[in-house]
Amino acid sequence: MATDKGPETITLPWASDFHCHLRQGTMMETVTPMVEQGGVRTVLAMPNLTPPLTKTQMALDYGKQLQKLAPNVHFILTLYLNPDLTPEEIAKAAASGITAVKVYPSGVTTNSDWGVLDLKQYYPTFAAMQEHNMVLCLHGECPSDSEKGICILNAEERFLATLQELHREFPKLRIVLEHATTKAAVDCVKSLGDTVACTITAHHLHITVDDWAGQPHHFCKPVAKYPTDRDALREIAVSGHPRFFLGSDSAPHPRRAKQGEKPAAGVFTTPLLMPLMATLFDKLGCLDKLEGFVSTNGRAFYQLPPASISDGSITLTRTADLQVPATYVIQESAAKSADSEPDTIVPFMAGTKLSWSITSTQ
Amino acid sequence: MATDKGPETITLPWASDFHCHLRQGTMMETVTPMVEQGGVRTVLAMPNLTPPLTKTQMALDYGKQLQKLAPNVHFILTLYLNPDLTPEEIAKAAASGITAVKVYPSGVTTNSDWGVLDLKQYYPTFAAMQEHNMVLCLHGECPSDSEKGICILNAEERFLATLQELHREFPKLRIVLEHATTKAAVDCVKSLGDTVACTITAHHLHITVDDWAGQPHHFCKPVAKYPTDRDALREIAVSGHPRFFLGSDSAPHPRRAKQGEKPAAGVFTTPLLMPLMATLFDKLGCLDKLEGFVSTNGRAFYQLPPASISDGSITLTRTADLQVPATYVIQESAAKSADSEPDTIVPFMAGTKLSWSITSTQ
Repeated sequence: MATDKGPETITLPWASDFHCHLRQGTMMETVTPMVEQGGVRTVLAMPNLTPPLTKTQMALDYGKQLQKLAPNVHFILTLYLNPDLTPEEIAKAAASGITAVKVYPSGVTTNSDWGVLDLKQYYPTFAAMQEHNMVLCLHGECPSDSEKGICILNAEERFLATLQELHREFPKLRIVLEHATTKAAVDCVKSLGDTVACTITAHHLHITVDDWAGQPHHFCKPVAKYPTDRDALREIAVSGHPRFFLGSDSAPHPRRAKQGEKPAAGVFTTPLLMPLMATLFDKLGCLDKLEGFVSTNGRAFYQLPPASISDGSITLTRTADLQVPATYVIQESAAKSADSEPDTIVPFMAGTKLSWSITSTQ
Repeated sequence: MATDKGPETITLPWASDFHCHLRQGTMMETVTPMVEQGGVRTVLAMPNLTPPLTKTQMALDYGKQLQKLAPNVHFILTLYLNPDLTPEEIAKAAASGITAVKVYPSGVTTNSDWGVLDLKQYYPTFAAMQEHNMVLCLHGECPSDSEKGICILNAEERFLATLQELHREFPKLRIVLEHATTKAAVDCVKSLGDTVACTITAHHLHITVDDWAGQPHHFCKPVAKYPTDRDALREIAVSGHPRFFLGSDSAPHPRRAKQGEKPAAGVFTTPLLMPLMATLFDKLGCLDKLEGFVSTNGRAFYQLPPASISDGSITLTRTADLQVPATYVIQESAAKSADSEPDTIVPFMAGTKLSWSITSTQ
């Protein structure tokens, strides 16, 4: 039923999240079943495990573990760029159904210790990926370097020259600049060809630097930046531009790791992803653009069949009070002592209220 | 003894810190005696207590408490700008030996809930301060406002127009822009007349945004910014410019308040202040400029007699291993249960090593 405020309910195909950290062990067992809870049935699983997924067989084994935990979800598997990813290994990965390779510059985020410093050495790998139609996912930040004036605030902007260079060298290679946080990144991706796309997270559409300063549960890499940057992200997200789409970068950490002396980087949005997106798009008066951003655009870029309501759907309803839980309990492994206090994950916007909730699924 | 690396020891008059939070209760009892430990015997005590120091008598009473805890230290007393500071109250404050009035824009830092939104209403107060030769200390940040594009990264730069306007309106009023964090602020203060000065903290000379992101014990307001900003702060600090000097903004918080869900803003440097400063000035090859920055310049601006070694001194010595303690225990009040675990303060650069220490005092 439509009102002055827009519709009271919307029904969409299950959404797609083209960037998600599903972790390992008890954390994986906890968050993987939450993907559907967030309204998502296609999810690209990041390879920055310990150890990272550096070979085809490792990714396939990981995919099997995930599939067991969420049988209805389509998992897009990825590999972590590393010297073992020879052109031969790329051919094998592609033939095995692995979709993408992720690049972490060294030291920029969680489990990026194995990351790369010089991309040129990987040009033969990228050439093989281009040939085999794989996707290159970029954590687009330069490592901080005071001597060069690089810090976490301009690390993304400084990386854009590398993106442009990669696109010039490999014009047919599909490249995704992930979790864009700046107007500069948005403008750059817009200016490039059809093989370059960009994901945006739910949290970067909501917050700015003020929201993570002194709030470790909102701290992630890349960090949220200026209000003008957030404005640019919101503008492109609701514009319908086909090369911009949702990649949540949901990255759960135990509460203890977020509230210690050195809070880990990462924001957890998985179980609330579509309520967060609907709340924001409604606030911006653009609910009609939601399906494009959370499903159509990304699926087209990743060459997946369009999602159709006839294949399953979620219905979101305007509500006054979807309470975001203060915490989610991490499933303890059976081996662990029953005495120890269970650790938890604090979600994005914990304890606040969202104005849209998922009321039914099919 | 001089070597290629410069001198191995330096002897200076006791330093002056023109911005320090000495708190109340057990925290005050803990940190006030540490002022001397840091090599300082003149300290400007901030008035943002609970409740804030809004009247002359309150500041005088506070000064007595501080003096009892550190009999050798000269405390410069301040008042918190508020509607009770009428021109009459300013006259009374000045006659009572209170030196300065502090302005907190509303909501920008710890205990700034009583802060002001519009400075124009205080012009009669400022006129009285000018007449009575008091100093106006400014927390120079605009409150964040997404609609106006203001966030914690540009809040200081946006405030500079207000500083310029105050200086234009009250050209003889001595104004201190406190804890400058940006090149823009340095350039602005340099461009203004002799009645406008600027303090810089030890921590802002050391860190950038990267150091407080994910490190709550380095989080303070204003936040540390870009490497180019830190470069500008360092450059002016070692330049000998007479209107730039040390104001540590040392701001202790209990460890629990720094490592929770919403870490409090503030960096604690009091007991290590001169070792921190000597380590930095030595690294920059400018130990000869240290006395100017930590004593001469600020004392001249505040119209205090120059500090002389004949009145007492500190000797700093190059060392390989001054270990910064992991924590300092907060003195528990006698009334408190002996069972409860004592809380602590985590200092700046906890657990690391400094390369200068205070080896003797006179």
